Amino acid sequence: MSESKELHDHAVIIDGLVISRWSRAVFEAMHRGGLTAVNCTCSVWEGFRGTMENIAEWQGWFREHDDLITQVHSADDIERAKREGRVGIVLGWQNTSALEDRADFVEIFAALGVRVMQLTYNTQNLVGSGCWESRDGGLSDFGRDVIDEMNRVGVLVDLSHVGAKTTEDAIRHSAMPVAFTHCCPIAFLDHPRNKTDDEMRLIAERGGFVGVATYTPFLPWHDDTTVEQCVEVFEHVIDVAGEDHVGLGTDFTEGQDVGFFEWLGRDKGIGRNLIPGVRRIPPGPKGLETLADYPNLTDAMLRRGWSAARVEKIMGGNWHRLFREVWAGT
Amino acid sequence: MSESKELHDHAVIIDGLVISRWSRAVFEAMHRGGLTAVNCTCSVWEGFRGTMENIAEWQGWFREHDDLITQVHSADDIERAKREGRVGIVLGWQNTSALEDRADFVEIFAALGVRVMQLTYNTQNLVGSGCWESRDGGLSDFGRDVIDEMNRVGVLVDLSHVGAKTTEDAIRHSAMPVAFTHCCPIAFLDHPRNKTDDEMRLIAERGGFVGVATYTPFLPWHDDTTVEQCVEVFEHVIDVAGEDHVGLGTDFTEGQDVGFFEWLGRDKGIGRNLIPGVRRIPPGPKGLETLADYPNLTDAMLRRGWSAARVEKIMGGNWHRLFREVWAGT
Repeated sequence: MSESKELHDHAVIIDGLVISRWSRAVFEAMHRGGLTAVNCTCSVWEGFRGTMENIAEWQGWFREHDDLITQVHSADDIERAKREGRVGIVLGWQNTSALEDRADFVEIFAALGVRVMQLTYNTQNLVGSGCWESRDGGLSDFGRDVIDEMNRVGVLVDLSHVGAKTTEDAIRHSAMPVAFTHCCPIAFLDHPRNKTDDEMRLIAERGGFVGVATYTPFLPWHDDTTVEQCVEVFEHVIDVAGEDHVGLGTDFTEGQDVGFFEWLGRDKGIGRNLIPGVRRIPPGPKGLETLADYPNLTDAMLRRGWSAARVEKIMGGNWHRLFREVWAGT
Repeated sequence: MSESKELHDHAVIIDGLVISRWSRAVFEAMHRGGLTAVNCTCSVWEGFRGTMENIAEWQGWFREHDDLITQVHSADDIERAKREGRVGIVLGWQNTSALEDRADFVEIFAALGVRVMQLTYNTQNLVGSGCWESRDGGLSDFGRDVIDEMNRVGVLVDLSHVGAKTTEDAIRHSAMPVAFTHCCPIAFLDHPRNKTDDEMRLIAERGGFVGVATYTPFLPWHDDTTVEQCVEVFEHVIDVAGEDHVGLGTDFTEGQDVGFFEWLGRDKGIGRNLIPGVRRIPPGPKGLETLADYPNLTDAMLRRGWSAARVEKIMGGNWHRLFREVWAGT
């Protein structure tokens, strides 16, 4: 067995953001890829009821595919998933639209396993503004109430698609570390979804986290991106945020179609077009095309000359520690 | 018959904002007070479904109390109400929470008779910020979409409880005149709900409107306010905005209880307390205690030495003209 394969099989592998079209084929790919746990998006533009329907659908999948996946509510559950050889599913949100007008619904959803909540998705909501909104007035008063509740209950605050001012306010307001679960550095490509080194430094200084995306539209090489170039991006983020504050957040969209991207790219799914350009399904990086390909990322890190200890941290150890800290609540 | 009574009976009397506890007793008082039309709040913190329930309840009242009230959808309907000796009911909102995430719901609600929509109620929503929010990032991109739709369909934009920055953005963005349906001048009392002379001037310069509230917490004399002092306030607003841009917007809360004010005063009805001080039901001005007392206001204006023409404009003629202009749509 190669050193690379041995390390990958032994390590806790965690992906901070996947938004694939859920199916047995996707769960099989994740399982084949050796994933220990993954933050799976179950709400983007949906409100309370639509999100509950999505969670009910997940509950069916947990029963139906329990040979491959298992729901995780805690850091200990992630260890259990590793022991059992199943993929641990963390339910997550890319928006707080599901809360509608109630901060106390945070606890309702947390009890159902939603343990990561992004504050805003691209545009303004009741909590703050998004990265595709033309201006950002910062975190609202209700937004502070929502973060307080997430801190209390133990839900990770995700700021990936959040506007710059709301992001800074949220980092400074939250009593618990917060995360960009899936982003790339502006140092590589100036894109509304990418983050400055200062933003990544600020989040890490507060004990927080940067999940590095391997989503090719965020990278300067676009369709030609390779897994080796992704490792370069990881190195930059490690240099900025520190080796203990970085992990994966691939943003895999496996199995989605153009209609899904159309829905994502319009305000609230049906409004004005937020994201210029032709709608298409972007290819993954070469060597990291599918959810079964995580071993290639581990291999590329080792080939780059990283220590086994660093690889283990970046591939999941850091996420595991952050989840343990944040999910305990305050 | 006194000159005052004759004028009041002959004129179109319009109140730009009433938020009473609707009942036959309230409809009787409005009828006795000689009201021709009135903007009746049917949504404050409610979402889509809750607002639809409120409108359904109004539809029952239109049937049950058709000797006293009639729904109005147009400026011509207001003339009809006057001819028929009934009180014309304009349904109105103090928030856009009922739209939830859909700008195209504006047309749905307009078809049901909702012809005045305040953009925000006290705090941030998807459209902008409110006057009790600690900061105001201005009109959101979705907010622009909502105003565009209100302009197109012919719904009056109300900015009474809206934050200062969102107010200015909305005045400048709207292609149609907009209104403060119910407010008092900061020149009399520095209060988060009151408006500066500059704000009232800006709204009037654009063809818009100031409805003057007779709600005693907004006035320097508080519980001791008299109807004569209210006329002083009208005079100040006329001096600032011009005689053609001013009307009534009493903010009558007749029949409401402390629980209602508690609901109004908390974010989204159930969140943090927005409005400091003890919850109580404020008394109306002396001489203007109830919805039956509009004739006393007409009388006080004439006693102040106003011309009959000015009294008719302020008591309803101006509102009637504005509704005709705005409700036509663009």
